[in-house]
Amino acid sequence: MSHAVTEAELAATIDHAILKPEFTRSDVDGHLASAAEWGVFSVCVRPSDIAYAVEYLADTDVVVGTVIGFPHGTTSTAGKVAEVRQAIADGVTELDMVVNIGWLRSGFDDEVVADIRAVVDAADGHLVKVILETSLLDDEQIARGSRLTDAGGAAFVKTSTGFAGGGATAAHVRLMRENVGEGVQVKASGGVRSLADALEMLDAGATRLGTSASATILGALRAGGSGDSVDTASY
Amino acid sequence: MSHAVTEAELAATIDHAILKPEFTRSDVDGHLASAAEWGVFSVCVRPSDIAYAVEYLADTDVVVGTVIGFPHGTTSTAGKVAEVRQAIADGVTELDMVVNIGWLRSGFDDEVVADIRAVVDAADGHLVKVILETSLLDDEQIARGSRLTDAGGAAFVKTSTGFAGGGATAAHVRLMRENVGEGVQVKASGGVRSLADALEMLDAGATRLGTSASATILGALRAGGSGDSVDTASY
Repeated sequence: MSHAVTEAELAATIDHAILKPEFTRSDVDGHLASAAEWGVFSVCVRPSDIAYAVEYLADTDVVVGTVIGFPHGTTSTAGKVAEVRQAIADGVTELDMVVNIGWLRSGFDDEVVADIRAVVDAADGHLVKVILETSLLDDEQIARGSRLTDAGGAAFVKTSTGFAGGGATAAHVRLMRENVGEGVQVKASGGVRSLADALEMLDAGATRLGTSASATILGALRAGGSGDSVDTASY
Repeated sequence: MSHAVTEAELAATIDHAILKPEFTRSDVDGHLASAAEWGVFSVCVRPSDIAYAVEYLADTDVVVGTVIGFPHGTTSTAGKVAEVRQAIADGVTELDMVVNIGWLRSGFDDEVVADIRAVVDAADGHLVKVILETSLLDDEQIARGSRLTDAGGAAFVKTSTGFAGGGATAAHVRLMRENVGEGVQVKASGGVRSLADALEMLDAGATRLGTSASATILGALRAGGSGDSVDTASY
């Protein structure tokens, strides 16, 4: 059941998160340089950093994503849509929106789907991920939130913002995987800080990882693998 | 130097915060009822709760405020402006925006002022407060952020979101007070949970308090004061 994951394969799953509100331009530069050095799939930056990141990474294969309604998700739908349009104008490739957590927990399913659908429509073909913030939800809410994400037309359901405590668990990734159709992927984020964490999430069914520890994770793979790979259970 | 603060005077300083992303409709109802019962100045609700709160409080004197670019402040200016417009359409009275914390810490003063100015302009006469998030700033940044808030045309500078750790301190309130003109007020928020906290902030120069503990604070005043007031140092 196991086969090797190469460094390139693992790097291709990583959205490198650069999201802390206190980050200065210098902090952002350091993370962008690291993302370029390790060849991750993308960086996920604050909305006000998109244009800068796109220019910084122009000569690399690393694309730029951002967050919408982040991190609470209780922004008005109109606000989220406007954020999406500005992000696209600034050159973003992917959009990680936060579900309206209060609506999800209140059972306002139609409102949740409409909010997601409005973002997907505004995204105009750009890939949309929906963050549920699993640490604030019980299993029923996570399962239902995953189904509503699918119903809203998003490409991914995602575990966590990284700002509400907790983070991705293998059990939650499996639960999300079981509650979306084959066309929807799962992104594990929040607390993914080691190679072991990363491989556990992929093994549970995630196909994308959100982390700020790309250098640690990929460095461990490079240092510890046979050649440039390590065996995992099933990835 | 001391005189009494009455319950009505203290209540008139309170923006009752109802902002946790995990709050259900039922949680919101409980807070709205408490705000109405105690006769605070306003509730500060999540953007997606504005219309509901306005209707709920229609027969009271409590007005409804909201938060913009909350709680990280690194939303695009276009996103903040769209949030403001939707909030006004939904019936909001006051707007508490978060400064772009990364820009402030990076010394991008012109960008900080332009972001504030865009929100003030979109607010079209509605009162705007600027949250600096003092726990993520040093004293120079707090002082400069206060001056930039004044330059941007906002009515208040405010300490904290309540979601970044830390919270209002008397020293920070004084520092903010010293760095804005007479036309700009100071709002203390984050960690204001007791009557003693509230009075300390007012004594330091705050004229508005953000708190979820209105019942505790006003209840203590009612229970402990001579009649309905207590002596404070200088409020």
